[in-house]
Amino acid sequence: MVRIITFLTDFGLKNSYVAQMKAVAASLTDARLIDITHNITPHSICEGAFILKTSIPFFPDGTVHVAVVDPGVGTKRKNIVIITRSQILVGPDNGLLIPAARTLGEFNVYEITNKKCMINPVSDTFHGRDIFTPVAANIVNGMSFEEIGPKLNDYVDLDFGKAEITDKTATGKIIYIDDFGNIITNIGSSDIRKQLDFDKKIMVFIGKNNYEMTFLKSYDFTEKNQLLATIGSSNYLEISLNQGNAAKKLKAKLDDEIKILFN
Amino acid sequence: MVRIITFLTDFGLKNSYVAQMKAVAASLTDARLIDITHNITPHSICEGAFILKTSIPFFPDGTVHVAVVDPGVGTKRKNIVIITRSQILVGPDNGLLIPAARTLGEFNVYEITNKKCMINPVSDTFHGRDIFTPVAANIVNGMSFEEIGPKLNDYVDLDFGKAEITDKTATGKIIYIDDFGNIITNIGSSDIRKQLDFDKKIMVFIGKNNYEMTFLKSYDFTEKNQLLATIGSSNYLEISLNQGNAAKKLKAKLDDEIKILFN
Amino acid sequence: MVRIITFLTDFGLKNSYVAQMKAVAASLTDARLIDITHNITPHSICEGAFILKTSIPFFPDGTVHVAVVDPGVGTKRKNIVIITRSQILVGPDNGLLIPAARTLGEFNVYEITNKKCMINPVSDTFHGRDIFTPVAANIVNGMSFEEIGPKLNDYVDLDFGKAEITDKTATGKIIYIDDFGNIITNIGSSDIRKQLDFDKKIMVFIGKNNYEMTFLKSYDFTEKNQLLATIGSSNYLEISLNQGNAAKKLKAKLDDEIKILFN
Repeated sequence: MVRIITFLTDFGLKNSYVAQMKAVAASLTDARLIDITHNITPHSICEGAFILKTSIPFFPDGTVHVAVVDPGVGTKRKNIVIITRSQILVGPDNGLLIPAARTLGEFNVYEITNKKCMINPVSDTFHGRDIFTPVAANIVNGMSFEEIGPKLNDYVDLDFGKAEITDKTATGKIIYIDDFGNIITNIGSSDIRKQLDFDKKIMVFIGKNNYEMTFLKSYDFTEKNQLLATIGSSNYLEISLNQGNAAKKLKAKLDDEIKILFN
Repeated sequence: MVRIITFLTDFGLKNSYVAQMKAVAASLTDARLIDITHNITPHSICEGAFILKTSIPFFPDGTVHVAVVDPGVGTKRKNIVIITRSQILVGPDNGLLIPAARTLGEFNVYEITNKKCMINPVSDTFHGRDIFTPVAANIVNGMSFEEIGPKLNDYVDLDFGKAEITDKTATGKIIYIDDFGNIITNIGSSDIRKQLDFDKKIMVFIGKNNYEMTFLKSYDFTEKNQLLATIGSSNYLEISLNQGNAAKKLKAKLDDEIKILFN
Repeated sequence: MVRIITFLTDFGLKNSYVAQMKAVAASLTDARLIDITHNITPHSICEGAFILKTSIPFFPDGTVHVAVVDPGVGTKRKNIVIITRSQILVGPDNGLLIPAARTLGEFNVYEITNKKCMINPVSDTFHGRDIFTPVAANIVNGMSFEEIGPKLNDYVDLDFGKAEITDKTATGKIIYIDDFGNIITNIGSSDIRKQLDFDKKIMVFIGKNNYEMTFLKSYDFTEKNQLLATIGSSNYLEISLNQGNAAKKLKAKLDDEIKILFN
């Protein structure tokens, strides 16, 4: 069994919050500590959920993920552990962990109630350090899931939705914009490729505007500063601007509706 | 005994300086290498000292910390190792290490003079790689402290000061502004909580302006874009703007005096 | 033999691409994973090559480096492994790996053709995860170089050039500007120091402008906001502005010619 704890937060890397979490982990376990990212837009649960979901399929069985995008810390929102068939997630009950868990198949959610797996005293502002990290370290060290707390059925859900596909159109939404400005939609690779071949021209509608581009296998089959649609490494349809920022050019924002018209 | 070396610098992560330090460490020891941060504002010894001080209590006994915020590199400033009861610090003699060391209780300072624990030749511009990291690796590998160099009594001190508390006021200064814009003061949690209960209204004076806000247990007991005072995870009084940037709104700068009036 | 894999990319740390690479590595090997940087300017092969070249001399023998600055991913550019006398490099055949390899002496280039060392299926957009990282993990686990693929003689070369030195002048170019604004030239330390002693005044020509400054042993032998020339930690002549940004002040850009006149 691997012994890996990953960390995903919106803390940034300028302060010492991430170091405090790793210090707690290193005090409790010799598991490998791997960063997913700490640059989630502050309080953006959706963005954190997307990044976690796209990373998790590549980690080995037994990996324990600590994720903290937690605007509700210190209020009554619950602390949870999700057990999937292969990996474990620890974090706040605000939807952040759900898309990643769902990617791995069936899962069970447990509320963290056992004070023995927390730092004592627990602060009101930093559950990442005082609850989630020590719980993850205890799990990687072999604590049984029953000791964490009771099963939770009414956890907070989060879903990226499913695009609607016809033989002439695909209608979905923007679920992520990466730092190159690539626009990631919730239109899945297998859905779109049933209807559309590479190198076909398409029309893309975002807001009140529409843009003609080609559906391409790779960025570099087009000219510099040309728009293109492609299948990104997360297996969703992406709109990109070769060597440029598509989101800026198309004034696209998270959650905007996007419609593709096949010619 | 744990075998951990941490790194804190103002080098940023765009160049290869941090990688060069880790390469030297990995050549000399199999200790775990953990980043505290590399995004200290360049040359800001105070900011580095604050971040190191807030991280160090969470690391296990035996951890060796390498810290490099070092505007005086290449001049006659000394290179030092600080031995506390539980952890070890390595870096320049410019005050950077002192608040962290003091947090852990009594400590002794040694000047690094033994050329055997340095990379040969030592560069004039990069003691982090050529002196501090190899010294840390040697310590984690079991070198005795006597081999480092002589005890140093007239080291450069740095102190965040102590706020003045009366039954009606607390007067201190801003010692850190985090990247969310939260304003961290040197008014300690235990001092203020003797005089002030949660949910009380207070008046905060910064520069020529004053602001009314509530002293709250957590960020989320207030509305979006409302100012609040709270106890941060570093156990100091913080001024925050819920889901906003308090430092910008209040035009607050590092070292500004801050005065709290209890109602 | 050490077991270290390093990573250098232009992916940034906001998305999950780096995490996906580390997840693949951690699935295949328990080697230590060390970041060089992920903040190379997107698509800047030269900048990536410089950073890799300046890091590699400090890593121990046997280290395997994965480098991904790869604007041509998905086109016909080849995937390569470079075997030097002491370390191994894995990445795209676009010049990125060559200056680092050359720093270590003689080397051989192999094309990666063996599908058994790749993730199946290989994506069109992310060879860093699907080819370079699994190849590196296989090498660190002991796979023989012959299994990778055939030797490649017509690889893409990249060279930072060599400055021209006379007894009165040094003429070279700007090969890197770091995030403090220090201007790094291709004028080597040993070449310039044969002609020029520390503390001598020099005249520096960049573009249509020229600037007088002193050639100093260290940043701190000059006043704040004074220009200076010095030998940086990468052993090239650098132009710096003490506690300021030299590149901005001198309007210097990558690849600009730079000429030094000794008095």
